[in-house]
Amino acid sequence: MTENRQIIIDSLPTGRLEPGNYALRTGEAPAPGGGEVLCRTLAITIGAGQRAGLQGSASYAGAPRAGIVMSGTAVARVEASNDDSVPVGSLVVCPAGWQDYSVHAASKVRVVDHGDSDGDPAHHLGLYGTNGMTAYFGLFDVGDPKEGQTVLVSAAAGSVGHLVGQMARIAGCRVVGVAGGEAKCRLLIEELGFDAAVDYKSPDFRTEFREALPERIDIYFDNTGGEVLGGALRRMKIHGRIVCCGVVSQYDTSKPEPGPFGVPGLLINFRVRMEGFLVFDYADRYGEARSQMREWVDAGKLVPKQDVFKGLERAPEAFVDLLAGGNVGTRIVRVSS
Amino acid sequence: MTENRQIIIDSLPTGRLEPGNYALRTGEAPAPGGGEVLCRTLAITIGAGQRAGLQGSASYAGAPRAGIVMSGTAVARVEASNDDSVPVGSLVVCPAGWQDYSVHAASKVRVVDHGDSDGDPAHHLGLYGTNGMTAYFGLFDVGDPKEGQTVLVSAAAGSVGHLVGQMARIAGCRVVGVAGGEAKCRLLIEELGFDAAVDYKSPDFRTEFREALPERIDIYFDNTGGEVLGGALRRMKIHGRIVCCGVVSQYDTSKPEPGPFGVPGLLINFRVRMEGFLVFDYADRYGEARSQMREWVDAGKLVPKQDVFKGLERAPEAFVDLLAGGNVGTRIVRVSS
Repeated sequence: MTENRQIIIDSLPTGRLEPGNYALRTGEAPAPGGGEVLCRTLAITIGAGQRAGLQGSASYAGAPRAGIVMSGTAVARVEASNDDSVPVGSLVVCPAGWQDYSVHAASKVRVVDHGDSDGDPAHHLGLYGTNGMTAYFGLFDVGDPKEGQTVLVSAAAGSVGHLVGQMARIAGCRVVGVAGGEAKCRLLIEELGFDAAVDYKSPDFRTEFREALPERIDIYFDNTGGEVLGGALRRMKIHGRIVCCGVVSQYDTSKPEPGPFGVPGLLINFRVRMEGFLVFDYADRYGEARSQMREWVDAGKLVPKQDVFKGLERAPEAFVDLLAGGNVGTRIVRVSS
Repeated sequence: MTENRQIIIDSLPTGRLEPGNYALRTGEAPAPGGGEVLCRTLAITIGAGQRAGLQGSASYAGAPRAGIVMSGTAVARVEASNDDSVPVGSLVVCPAGWQDYSVHAASKVRVVDHGDSDGDPAHHLGLYGTNGMTAYFGLFDVGDPKEGQTVLVSAAAGSVGHLVGQMARIAGCRVVGVAGGEAKCRLLIEELGFDAAVDYKSPDFRTEFREALPERIDIYFDNTGGEVLGGALRRMKIHGRIVCCGVVSQYDTSKPEPGPFGVPGLLINFRVRMEGFLVFDYADRYGEARSQMREWVDAGKLVPKQDVFKGLERAPEAFVDLLAGGNVGTRIVRVSS
């Protein structure tokens, strides 16, 4: 028998998420049925939005409950196959959940190319996965940046934010990031080419924020909601746009705050468009985004960052740390190699 | 000497606006200088948005202070003129303020046609004035309704709302209005052709609201913000649009509430676009709107409503009553004939 470790939801969080909300369970790896494949998890990605799924309220991530394997997207290798279109040895992206082995209908996994991942299969989860697609379509389709405009990004060192900022620079924009802590702010400027970065933990945040945006904001790519959204609303340019991508400030709680002041008043005064999107609506254009991003990576213009925890058993810790803002780039948990 | 009555701001409101925040002052009518015209006020329009101007905070209406004549748009007759382009006897729309006489540079008044007002010059303030323009461009340009869609309008019996609803019907939409009180709701359905109306003062508002929107909302034309906006956010259709026109729920206070829950979370889940606008941005297209609306009025498809107070001295009372939701259609104060 092949052992299968699983991280299950032991209890739904009532306040902030804790590693103790999860438990490790060990059982037998499942066997694939007709038309199915058995996948061995190589790496899992964790996104802050998954925390919303644990609130039990409306979320695109569906309803959670205690006793089930924690959901999550993985890159995996096919170890057994009952479908010729996905042979043993294939590298696939699949909704494996937090476990070593999972079984899927062959039609539900996406075969990816070893050669297309810049040497690291985990890039199929970050840059060439949901994070990269989110950054690309949110910025270019919803935000529609033009050369010379000012783009503000919150959670700017995060899995989506660090890509948005670099892509906005590629589009010729002045890019300002908001992130937590001096180290992240320095990294945004020195490694990722942001024009300015503001630390939301600074006691002088409001002043520094205003000073970093002397010409106000054309496009605010909002990953956080909350206080940074409130601040951005007061600094929008007339006819500016707010791209609503995530609400990380309101995920790790069972009591979300009301929306910021100035909704809808400031939207009217500044004639601002605020638009939410989900990347899945762009699924038929992922190929276009991937080839464009590959060009940028090859040209050295786009640097995808990963923040890796090693070992399936560390997934809960990696998630809690992510919610506390511990990550730079895409949070990856390496499970096997 | 010609007497000029003026309603001045006596004190800025600290809570709800009261008639006692205004005072009547009598003086001499001004004399027009070079290139100026003397206008005698026939009627003034009052809009709820003017209350925001008294909050002293950011508003398109500019900063108020005690001791000045209350601002307001009027239709007026020119009684003396030092500019040939605007002869004595002209009917004009001008920023007269709440007074009998005002002087303006001829270039700052807009000459309107007696024959174009359907027999009532005050229609140049309502249907063919800012209210009508706001309804038209907000609905058609920002909202972009398509036949068969569901349009929700708040403050639906109000100066802008009652026109929006009728225009959305003309566009082939199913139209649901939210208004205060049974009488207004009945009027929306029986006189103005709304498909359904919900009384926000009803103890069963939430249930009635949901039941009036079985197919959810394609376009929400928001005149109120606050609780109705919060309710609409939960009933939006995927890829729906919210047209942010006004925030009447937050005007008559010095302590506006935070935004509703679900901003930006529900915007993301439902992929909603929320967009603020100011009608002045469409000034070069007012002619297009006016001729279209005139056709609809002539065809009996569009019925402009007015709610009239008689006498300049009643303007403060008319404003306070408007903020309490007392009006149906455009609030007009008739000053002279």
